[in-house]
Amino acid sequence: MNWNEIYQTAIEWTEQAGEILRAATKEILQVEYKTSAADLVTNKDKQIEQFFMDRLSEKYPSHFLLGEEGLAKDKQFNPENEIVWIVDPIDGTTNFVHQKRNFAISVGIYEKGEPRVGIVYDPIAKEMFHAQIGTGAFLNNQLLPNLDEKSLEEANISINQLWLVPNDKVDHTIFTEVIQKARGTRYLGSAALEIAYVACGRLDTYIDFRLSPWDIAGGMVILQEVQGVMKNLENNSFSVFNPGITIFSNSNVLEEILLNSKKD
Amino acid sequence: MNWNEIYQTAIEWTEQAGEILRAATKEILQVEYKTSAADLVTNKDKQIEQFFMDRLSEKYPSHFLLGEEGLAKDKQFNPENEIVWIVDPIDGTTNFVHQKRNFAISVGIYEKGEPRVGIVYDPIAKEMFHAQIGTGAFLNNQLLPNLDEKSLEEANISINQLWLVPNDKVDHTIFTEVIQKARGTRYLGSAALEIAYVACGRLDTYIDFRLSPWDIAGGMVILQEVQGVMKNLENNSFSVFNPGITIFSNSNVLEEILLNSKKD
Repeated sequence: MNWNEIYQTAIEWTEQAGEILRAATKEILQVEYKTSAADLVTNKDKQIEQFFMDRLSEKYPSHFLLGEEGLAKDKQFNPENEIVWIVDPIDGTTNFVHQKRNFAISVGIYEKGEPRVGIVYDPIAKEMFHAQIGTGAFLNNQLLPNLDEKSLEEANISINQLWLVPNDKVDHTIFTEVIQKARGTRYLGSAALEIAYVACGRLDTYIDFRLSPWDIAGGMVILQEVQGVMKNLENNSFSVFNPGITIFSNSNVLEEILLNSKKD
Repeated sequence: MNWNEIYQTAIEWTEQAGEILRAATKEILQVEYKTSAADLVTNKDKQIEQFFMDRLSEKYPSHFLLGEEGLAKDKQFNPENEIVWIVDPIDGTTNFVHQKRNFAISVGIYEKGEPRVGIVYDPIAKEMFHAQIGTGAFLNNQLLPNLDEKSLEEANISINQLWLVPNDKVDHTIFTEVIQKARGTRYLGSAALEIAYVACGRLDTYIDFRLSPWDIAGGMVILQEVQGVMKNLENNSFSVFNPGITIFSNSNVLEEILLNSKKD
């Protein structure tokens, strides 16, 4: 398996897909509703997933595509046995439609369940975050340094405001003290970008509760390459295929978050 | 008073000041602490305020400068009697330092307490939001349309997560229902940009509790020009000089927010 070639090919395709999305922000978008008003999906979502499907079928026909749109759902898939490209064609669809910015294409490539390549591309800012496992993470052509030592008091924490008010997913008081002690809070609305921002120090932690593999597969590889940590509330690692409660973080900040969060 | 000239001059100076900040993001920054770890101030903050002071002294010596850094505090100031430039040299200093993006220069020019000119400039994205009262608001050279009709269920609400957990400023449950009903939530960390984003539809509402005149003076003029509304919890207008609890919003969304918020 030539992983360097797969890595470069994935970057190239993602950049091409990004051009389609960049052009699309200038068109009028035909938006359709999926499960809720908060979950906007556009025809571009499907177009980008198809774009990756077509290219994979041609160049790497044995590789599986796991995408948000599920276009390849007729194919058999076993993450333990195959190479899988986990693709979110537009991570942050609400931002895509309403802001025409702050969205990303996320691509994670895993072999027998192990991370190999991660890409998060913001086509508006033209920021390509990318990593091949063991060779460092990059923002465009710049190597990202390992994350600095940092305290919670110095940290910017990203978390959806919805998890801080009563909701049907989690106890909304788990992170009260964390929010009170942090330097600042943010929420961008794109999991892939949020994880990439932790990797480059724009954020120090990103916390979420209802993520899917395609939201995080690309970012996880990038964050791992700068010594970032990915844990749940019990300080356990989680699988990209079954994330649950997820904290993507600077490691020092994670330690303080776990000390200051409420366990049920 | 030639307000067209003042307007164009303000845009020009703000663009020049933005170039200084854009260059500064590439330097190593000497950061000093002011009141708290969350309130980072840099030498660039002072430099930009001085930049406006120097130019005002030369071109409009009778105009007053009200700035976050208070460099002109020795001068007498009465907002009812004079022309005042209300300047935030770097709105979003934490973002400036940690993200090197998502900050803005905010300039509002008021005559006898009445809004005349508003500017919010993001020098990294090169987005100049600007308005002269009565002549419409612009993003760069593009006229911004009046805000669309919209429901809370379709709205993206920006609010600091800190106001949703127990804190020493406000009842943290005021907006619980608003957050539960909104399409989405966001928090960028720059009041000036957040208000400008409401004006161009990237956000639909921005709620905050502890803003200063320089955070909002520019954005208020811009938002007013697209028929946005600025009210407190009692549905009253507030003064730029004494904001209190502030909701910057699409007007339909504001109505629903007031119906769904808790009054003490």
